[in-house]
Amino acid sequence: MPSAHFAGSPGAANGSAAGQRGLLRLTNCSALLPDGSLAHDYTLLIDRDTGRIVDGQSDFYHNGRTYAETVDLKGNLLVPGYIDAQINGAYGVDFGHFDESLSTGDAQRRYTEGMDRFATRILETGVTSFVPTVITQKPELYRKILPVLAPRSKPVHAHSLGFHVEGPFISPCKKGMHSDLLIRSAANGIADLEDVYGSGPSGLDMRGVKIVTVAPEIEGVLAAIPELRKRGCTISIGHTNSDIDTAVEAHDAGASLITHLFNAMSAFNHRDPGVVGLLGRSNPPGSKTADGHAQNGKQREESRPYYGMIVDGYHCHPYSVRMAYSCHPSGCVLTSDAVPWMDPSKPDGIYPWREGQNVAKVGFKVVLEGTDTLAGSTVPLSECVKRLSEYASIPLHEAAACATIHPAKMLGIQDRKGLLQPGNDADLTVLDARTGDVVETWIMGVRAWSRGEGAEQKV
Amino acid sequence: MPSAHFAGSPGAANGSAAGQRGLLRLTNCSALLPDGSLAHDYTLLIDRDTGRIVDGQSDFYHNGRTYAETVDLKGNLLVPGYIDAQINGAYGVDFGHFDESLSTGDAQRRYTEGMDRFATRILETGVTSFVPTVITQKPELYRKILPVLAPRSKPVHAHSLGFHVEGPFISPCKKGMHSDLLIRSAANGIADLEDVYGSGPSGLDMRGVKIVTVAPEIEGVLAAIPELRKRGCTISIGHTNSDIDTAVEAHDAGASLITHLFNAMSAFNHRDPGVVGLLGRSNPPGSKTADGHAQNGKQREESRPYYGMIVDGYHCHPYSVRMAYSCHPSGCVLTSDAVPWMDPSKPDGIYPWREGQNVAKVGFKVVLEGTDTLAGSTVPLSECVKRLSEYASIPLHEAAACATIHPAKMLGIQDRKGLLQPGNDADLTVLDARTGDVVETWIMGVRAWSRGEGAEQKV
Repeated sequence: MPSAHFAGSPGAANGSAAGQRGLLRLTNCSALLPDGSLAHDYTLLIDRDTGRIVDGQSDFYHNGRTYAETVDLKGNLLVPGYIDAQINGAYGVDFGHFDESLSTGDAQRRYTEGMDRFATRILETGVTSFVPTVITQKPELYRKILPVLAPRSKPVHAHSLGFHVEGPFISPCKKGMHSDLLIRSAANGIADLEDVYGSGPSGLDMRGVKIVTVAPEIEGVLAAIPELRKRGCTISIGHTNSDIDTAVEAHDAGASLITHLFNAMSAFNHRDPGVVGLLGRSNPPGSKTADGHAQNGKQREESRPYYGMIVDGYHCHPYSVRMAYSCHPSGCVLTSDAVPWMDPSKPDGIYPWREGQNVAKVGFKVVLEGTDTLAGSTVPLSECVKRLSEYASIPLHEAAACATIHPAKMLGIQDRKGLLQPGNDADLTVLDARTGDVVETWIMGVRAWSRGEGAEQKV
Repeated sequence: MPSAHFAGSPGAANGSAAGQRGLLRLTNCSALLPDGSLAHDYTLLIDRDTGRIVDGQSDFYHNGRTYAETVDLKGNLLVPGYIDAQINGAYGVDFGHFDESLSTGDAQRRYTEGMDRFATRILETGVTSFVPTVITQKPELYRKILPVLAPRSKPVHAHSLGFHVEGPFISPCKKGMHSDLLIRSAANGIADLEDVYGSGPSGLDMRGVKIVTVAPEIEGVLAAIPELRKRGCTISIGHTNSDIDTAVEAHDAGASLITHLFNAMSAFNHRDPGVVGLLGRSNPPGSKTADGHAQNGKQREESRPYYGMIVDGYHCHPYSVRMAYSCHPSGCVLTSDAVPWMDPSKPDGIYPWREGQNVAKVGFKVVLEGTDTLAGSTVPLSECVKRLSEYASIPLHEAAACATIHPAKMLGIQDRKGLLQPGNDADLTVLDARTGDVVETWIMGVRAWSRGEGAEQKV
């Protein structure tokens, strides 16, 4: 591990006098543009008063402001900060763990302390925003955990965007590591979901819910999708045995994501490609669009769903990764699906898990001890970007778009995060243009982490 | 059926005086260029003395030759004639049937008469060249059939390019309609193949062998691949239960095609994508190329195999078609895999097959009577082009490349067939640019078939 440096405060993090304000200029880099292309000799301007990207034309030239500072990015690759839409924890923090031996207040305090620890450590992986993911739980636990998972932003911390609930409305046939006993159907539609997750300000109606993973073939789920959409969340198809026809129904009803593609879903079959087949969805001429309008004789470009993919080399064969990516590049959303043992500095070994079971961590792979059953992943999202570039034979910036532009659009936050455009938060990741390694991570225009290069390099 | 017209002789087929010679000019069309792009306001020059495409610059301007005739293609789409690399028969002709009740000479005569009948009727589907395909047979039958299947060219007939033997060195687990009893392994490598197909001028060393479909996991097959390559044939992976590692070995050994992708092969699994996974094959940086040369630190674009695909809407789900095509567009080779009942004018119904079984033909679908088991296909290649365009959401000319440019390159005959370039045979298919329907088919610069438009239109 190279020495790494976390900024203690915004001022300190700028490598200049504390509290310095005005325009900051990042120069001498290539950069991933909002349209997915690569710009050379790029300059980015940041308003340090707001932490947002500014348009040089309108702000600098027209308002006569000058830069307080220029930072030379030394020819590196500048990309928007990575956004991880599916992460269960890391650095010993488990988003699904709530200490019921403590009072609810104390447990919530401990939970948020863990979130903060996570949100500073995760910066070294280039992640500036994340959607903490909670797999199938007892209903009473959701009521305690979810209220703590409202969006959170703290200086020089990665931002928590709200939560992703994965289960319990999933298929028992494709449960993966989820508990049999807690899996449910939704015969009463949205009411059953509210019974589990809660409703109102502490449940499905709170602003914290970003993604719900459900299996569309489970009773009541299809009918609940439009209701879930009204609550502003992204509906993802996952842990499912759905055939292609049911998957199409779910997609037409408003599901717009597939959870960890290929994993925990019906196998691709050429005559019934299942959920995976949505990547190749095409609409014959004259067919109706999802909202029921005829196409007026013109073939519409149907909007295929986004799909999360764990590109760790274990969850999907590298050739499967290339196949999926090539099918539908603009839908690819890299997710780490990381578990608490994710920590690049953590030694390989056997670690205790729940209910007396152990896991074995070897590099970026973690399995149930004594088996080859994957128990989540320990891959940093930065490594997924590098591997996608390699497996799919695409340039680094194109792979980085799958951790920035695509998840931002999938979550509907592209006007705030994930794109280098004026008005957006200056959450940035600086990559070694050759290796893809994370060199620096910036939060709201503040350099929050940088990789030491031999000698100590305070930021 | 519109009235259709087959030319009796080259002269008559030109719609002009018999035997007319000199340069022919086709104008007023769009055209599929050798690089896959579409040209508008295109003009093609044909030397009627040779039946080949000529370069207007070198021939017309420099040699001072003038056109004998100009043909107005009325804004239609001009593409190279379709090449079907896998076709078992059509119009009542069965390439696998050899009448053993007759003397060998009489049977061979009857067989070639059938080939000729096929080779004129098939023109209505836009096919100007084909590779007659013979599925698993008794060894003694190969010795009688294969010598008749040397390449054949007759005026205004589709050209037979040599044969495709599919089996018997295939997997019993993936036999499809092939006979259990005749499937074999190749413990003695190429010697076992010669025992079956014959060697020398009437077997594997004859110029007639174009494609051999084998299963690489069958004993002796991998070792035989380099030997087969020396005989100039294309090795195709098919009717196989191979995993991805064995598929990669076969690919590295020289197999360059996959027979009817998805059908009769191990299912795609995301952690072992099997033969299908070759479509997503990528090479990590620093790996060696197929011929053993290191990459010198630069990622090579590995040459992935071609893959035959039956785009009839039944053999693969339309979304599976789009997925495969999107993965590896330049490898897509449309094949009809047609059986003797393929004939657009043949009514739907029950027809006798071998060994007392019947088949049911419904439109472009043919199944074993009383089942939903596909018994080959009755789809014309022209319909596959139209469906690929629709399923994969691509323009017609891009789909047509999969029936022209790609099979020509796969067979290594791109300097003769499949591309509109000077020196190549003027085998042409004229499509209605809107519907994709075949309007005219040309063989060696002679209009050999045209679709009647209401009134009789003699060619």
